Amino acid sequence: MKLQVAMDVVTTDAALELAAKVAPYVDIIELGTPLIKAEGMRAVTAVKAAHPDKTVFADLKTMDAGELEADLAFTAGADLVTVLGTAGDSTIIGAVAAATKHGKGVVVDLIGVADKVTRAREVTELGAVFVEMHAGLDEQAEPGFSLATLLNQGETARVPFSLAGGVSVATIASVQRAGARVAVAGGAIYGAEDPAAAAAALRSPSSDAPGGPPSRQFCLNAKKHPRRKARVLCRVERVRGGQPSSSLASWSTE
Amino acid sequence: MKLQVAMDVVTTDAALELAAKVAPYVDIIELGTPLIKAEGMRAVTAVKAAHPDKTVFADLKTMDAGELEADLAFTAGADLVTVLGTAGDSTIIGAVAAATKHGKGVVVDLIGVADKVTRAREVTELGAVFVEMHAGLDEQAEPGFSLATLLNQGETARVPFSLAGGVSVATIASVQRAGARVAVAGGAIYGAEDPAAAAAALRSPSSDAPGGPPSRQFCLNAKKHPRRKARVLCRVERVRGGQPSSSLASWSTE
Ligand SMILES: [Mg+2]
Ligand SMILES: [Mg+2]
Repeated sequence: MKLQVAMDVVTTDAALELAAKVAPYVDIIELGTPLIKAEGMRAVTAVKAAHPDKTVFADLKTMDAGELEADLAFTAGADLVTVLGTAGDSTIIGAVAAATKHGKGVVVDLIGVADKVTRAREVTELGAVFVEMHAGLDEQAEPGFSLATLLNQGETARVPFSLAGGVSVATIASVQRAGARVAVAGGAIYGAEDPAAAAAALRSPSSDAPGGPPSRQFCLNAKKHPRRKARVLCRVERVRGGQPSSSLASWSTE
Repeated sequence: MKLQVAMDVVTTDAALELAAKVAPYVDIIELGTPLIKAEGMRAVTAVKAAHPDKTVFADLKTMDAGELEADLAFTAGADLVTVLGTAGDSTIIGAVAAATKHGKGVVVDLIGVADKVTRAREVTELGAVFVEMHAGLDEQAEPGFSLATLLNQGETARVPFSLAGGVSVATIASVQRAGARVAVAGGAIYGAEDPAAAAAALRSPSSDAPGGPPSRQFCLNAKKHPRRKARVLCRVERVRGGQPSSSLASWSTE
């Protein structure tokens, strides 16, 4: 399981500062939606320039103009972008077209989707590399929010998924047991007094601890679309010195 | 009926150039979602600085962190922001809280909402100043798209609404007949060889043509929420010289 830090800060400087602290312990660095709206694509470019060996995730939450928005972010340096699961299929297809052009990937964020299991399967067919089982910041603050429901939906869908919403040291083992490919931690890292220590503590012992194989390939399999070539996004990762994994290649289509 | 130009360009320079051409003929200047994601809030600030007498509409399409995102845009100079109708109620309530603090307004964009009539009524209760009956750029390109369906939903909902998707000189009379408060034109203006002439042609003769009253108040009534003070957003507008209306005051809560 990979660890993703969601940088829900609102300035590029704060993002660069946070990324510098936590990069050794995370696989995917996410620029949160408010950060992108506050600073624009230059924030994506700045983070990718500072961390060329990390997967940079632009949480665009695209609802329309899928190809245009995805193209802007990939051109700026993003490796993965999000489209909303509540968006129409043509928006997702447009973003996937841009991803194919750039050799990058689209993640579909299922925030606000009523039937997450069905939509997860649909958008995987459309070419999403994985879906994000996601309870938003506002939703997490509502009474009745439950991480268990999200995990159950991820397990039931049987497609590659990440989990965002309530990931902490107390819950990360359950996230891994449910089969998530990626655990997304936001406040548990950026809200900590020592974000580096918080990220290190979240890193799952069975995933990328020092001592693992010195080099290996990590692939995200997008289910074959009937009218489309199968897409498999992979990157090669190596463990350097005592540091947790550093990915030395960016996403590529196999 | 007001005329809103949706600036679906991706650089602040292009937005400022377009706004300068069309400002005399429009009431509301919209920074499109891709523009905001490309350039950040500095684009909002630049457009408001260049057109302080216009209503500046930041099409944030917020899906989460409603209060934070709305606050960023209002602080940058926006008068109106959008939240998605597919967002949870707590996200809309958060954005409305930010609007109340700043004396500005929230518009709920119904793109992607299956039952637009019901959701329109719900979000108006939550404090939206109006809803946007909206077919996205991707949806308009799909077979079967019909402006008539959108207009019918607006009429049926019986709450203040704008219409976005397919507004042109050929359709704007039907938009006005359906009772829209605002007609949103994008490609019909920015895609025209002469955007100023296109905007002038779209201006409805019965709305803000020269010769109207020299000063008047334009209000958007948000239906009273049971647990909230009634909110009425108004601005005073004057007609100067031969120019169509220029609004001289920004939104304020009555
Ligand atoms: Mg995020
Ligand atoms: Mg727009």
